[in-house]
Amino acid sequence: MRLSHPRRAVAVLAATGVVAALAVAVPAAATGHSTDATQSARRAIVGGEARNVILLIGDGMGDSEITIARNYQVGAAGRLAMDTLPLTGEYTTYSVDKDTGKPVYVTDSAASGTGWATGYKTYNNAVSVTRDGKPKPTVLELAKKAGYRTGNVTTAEIQDATPAVLESHVTARSCYGPVVTTKTCPTNAKENGGLGSISEQEVATRADVLLGGGSASFAETITAGADKGRTVLESAKRAGYQLPTTVSELNRISPTSKAPILGTFGPGNLDLEWTGPVPTKAGTAATTCQVNTARTATQPHLTDMSAKALQILDARSKHAKQGFFLQIEGASIDKQDHAANPCGQIGETVEFDKSVALALAYQKRHSDTLVVVTADHGHTSQIVEAPTTGVTATLTTHDGAPMTISYATTEYPGSQQHTGTEVRIAAKGPQAANVLGVTNQTDLNTTIRRALGLL
Amino acid sequence: MRLSHPRRAVAVLAATGVVAALAVAVPAAATGHSTDATQSARRAIVGGEARNVILLIGDGMGDSEITIARNYQVGAAGRLAMDTLPLTGEYTTYSVDKDTGKPVYVTDSAASGTGWATGYKTYNNAVSVTRDGKPKPTVLELAKKAGYRTGNVTTAEIQDATPAVLESHVTARSCYGPVVTTKTCPTNAKENGGLGSISEQEVATRADVLLGGGSASFAETITAGADKGRTVLESAKRAGYQLPTTVSELNRISPTSKAPILGTFGPGNLDLEWTGPVPTKAGTAATTCQVNTARTATQPHLTDMSAKALQILDARSKHAKQGFFLQIEGASIDKQDHAANPCGQIGETVEFDKSVALALAYQKRHSDTLVVVTADHGHTSQIVEAPTTGVTATLTTHDGAPMTISYATTEYPGSQQHTGTEVRIAAKGPQAANVLGVTNQTDLNTTIRRALGLL
Repeated sequence: MRLSHPRRAVAVLAATGVVAALAVAVPAAATGHSTDATQSARRAIVGGEARNVILLIGDGMGDSEITIARNYQVGAAGRLAMDTLPLTGEYTTYSVDKDTGKPVYVTDSAASGTGWATGYKTYNNAVSVTRDGKPKPTVLELAKKAGYRTGNVTTAEIQDATPAVLESHVTARSCYGPVVTTKTCPTNAKENGGLGSISEQEVATRADVLLGGGSASFAETITAGADKGRTVLESAKRAGYQLPTTVSELNRISPTSKAPILGTFGPGNLDLEWTGPVPTKAGTAATTCQVNTARTATQPHLTDMSAKALQILDARSKHAKQGFFLQIEGASIDKQDHAANPCGQIGETVEFDKSVALALAYQKRHSDTLVVVTADHGHTSQIVEAPTTGVTATLTTHDGAPMTISYATTEYPGSQQHTGTEVRIAAKGPQAANVLGVTNQTDLNTTIRRALGLL
Repeated sequence: MRLSHPRRAVAVLAATGVVAALAVAVPAAATGHSTDATQSARRAIVGGEARNVILLIGDGMGDSEITIARNYQVGAAGRLAMDTLPLTGEYTTYSVDKDTGKPVYVTDSAASGTGWATGYKTYNNAVSVTRDGKPKPTVLELAKKAGYRTGNVTTAEIQDATPAVLESHVTARSCYGPVVTTKTCPTNAKENGGLGSISEQEVATRADVLLGGGSASFAETITAGADKGRTVLESAKRAGYQLPTTVSELNRISPTSKAPILGTFGPGNLDLEWTGPVPTKAGTAATTCQVNTARTATQPHLTDMSAKALQILDARSKHAKQGFFLQIEGASIDKQDHAANPCGQIGETVEFDKSVALALAYQKRHSDTLVVVTADHGHTSQIVEAPTTGVTATLTTHDGAPMTISYATTEYPGSQQHTGTEVRIAAKGPQAANVLGVTNQTDLNTTIRRALGLL
């Protein structure tokens, strides 16, 4: 069985005319290049500035993870939406040692995100600060300052590294709220004259749209400044935010509303799309993935959030000189690769891919939009023929054939490791040619800034 | 210590004016795209036909293996020659089940090579035959028939899958010589009216240049036909081949010689370039790779063979209407990944990369040459932070930093598994745009044939 879920948000968007039908972006099967791709490649190279940039990050979504999701969902000769972007390359993701500045070949999401957010290599654990703890401006901050509308969407806690790097600057990624910040990031703590925790900084950054999980940290009390003694949530209310906590509340927000939207739809990371077999040392019988029926019904799917963010950003920038910058993260691809949960990982990749389809549908109507799809680092999962030194599970794919997936970088059930491989970066729209070949993760910062005229 | 070996063959080529200095193709460090790459990308898209095609196959050289070699040899921000090709994509490598035709997600080198050699998906073990055992014409055969000069270079036995798919058609890859063929590939055996073993068919195909290891099978006796009772080697002599067996003999062959060249420089696979630490469950202290001093001095390095092949093919096609098709394989990247030998694997990748540099230097002087660099499938090795469920070794890289490499798809010292990930394909020259995006391995066949006007 192939899985899908109701495309409420897409229907909303289609109704409001923001995107065309989604189907166009996802061919049923690979055609290869049976005809010469030279002319279409020429047409795909578009210089100049972009009005909008949509950056889609599949966390931990290396080439192996993409292939696994493709094989399962559309078959080996099928194509995901992310496979249809015309210009592609690979980029390096390494971080640097805090003390020596030398490369660390396996990055975490904080250092890698800091790479494209700020253009600076930094140490694992750092959120948009350099090795010496100095904050560097992010593409979202620069875009907002220049008059662009901004958005930040994730299936993780909104304080998790990938969303955090766009809107905050702390010396350790765990500094979600004031309590941890006082202890772990003292130089960032408000009471020490710092910018505050990730949550506080995200409220202060005031993006048009910030959506994900992570409401728990918002109950913590601010330690200094104008909001001293209030919770972060209270401070957001005072700052005029719209604060949806369910998909219904999110969908009810009018496209013509003006106030920033800060939606947290669960205390931690959002629930998974799919469930499936637990991998074992000996492997499993071939089976298929199932919808996660335990999923909290009030939580939006990633694509619900992506669609609403696009609707809002499109509406708010429609008559303005500048367009928007939007980041969309499929966060739990990484988290379920860590957990050695193949269906968890694939379900999140497929849901992420629907957001890619949505972005491409928007780009089709607004060709002055740069869409970039990439990952922050590689991960553990490998397609193999037989049991390995780790654990494996076998899934029956769209092709009706068995695919065995191995997790072998840590003894199960420990957290599987990130890997240091270069990962795919694909793009469409103005400046997309800058992803060709082999680039560095920090080059993506330059590409986005050049596209938005922020260099 | 970074390793290199005397570049005799390159010097020879440079002296004969076939290539310019090699250094140009290998920048010392990454520059990223600090300037807009849009214009250079436009210039890199060249349509029309190519006079020559040079196809370089890093066997088992997935994105992880490329990253490992880059980090070690030139550092994380450095660039290998293969990183400098301007147009890049990923392609899928799956094979198919012999009985059902459904995808098999982990290919072997025989099925994958058959993909680009013939354009047909086939079963693991098949050498340029379809599921029902029917031979399909290969790009080398079609090119030769159309008047192109042809070459086939490998560090493996010349009967190994990747060279074999260009010049032979057998139902099982092990059918190197007449003896095995009688038993394992009876429908291919000469005495049964077949085309004979891989060795016999390679002699019959009569490429201008076929270089590698694998002399052992040439001592076997032919079972039927005009050469019945003679060894394969004797049949090659009778067919007028030049038969060098040492690098000196190879280098002494005149560029103006006319007879085909069949060089076998060892009984089996050629010796490794580098040696290094044995990985263990607990990992190793950080160390560096060493030159393999046990290497047989009379064996050419891959780039010696690549340079000679280029020299011969260039000379023989210089005044002809058609140019040449040349495949160059770095075979033991795969074999040392199987063996969980990090320095073995890296040394072969670095040597392969020198052949890429040579091809790019040729392309620089002959812009009507299409150069394609890719792999046949992914492999086991991963860059990790800590010991895994398999074995790891840690190397000190060009950056002076530790890089830990894991092999965990099979209990050491068993043969590590291939993986099913999509792998990089990069190109430069006419038709290079056809590698962009996500393609299928069989599409490479179309691209090469289109470039050579063979569609």
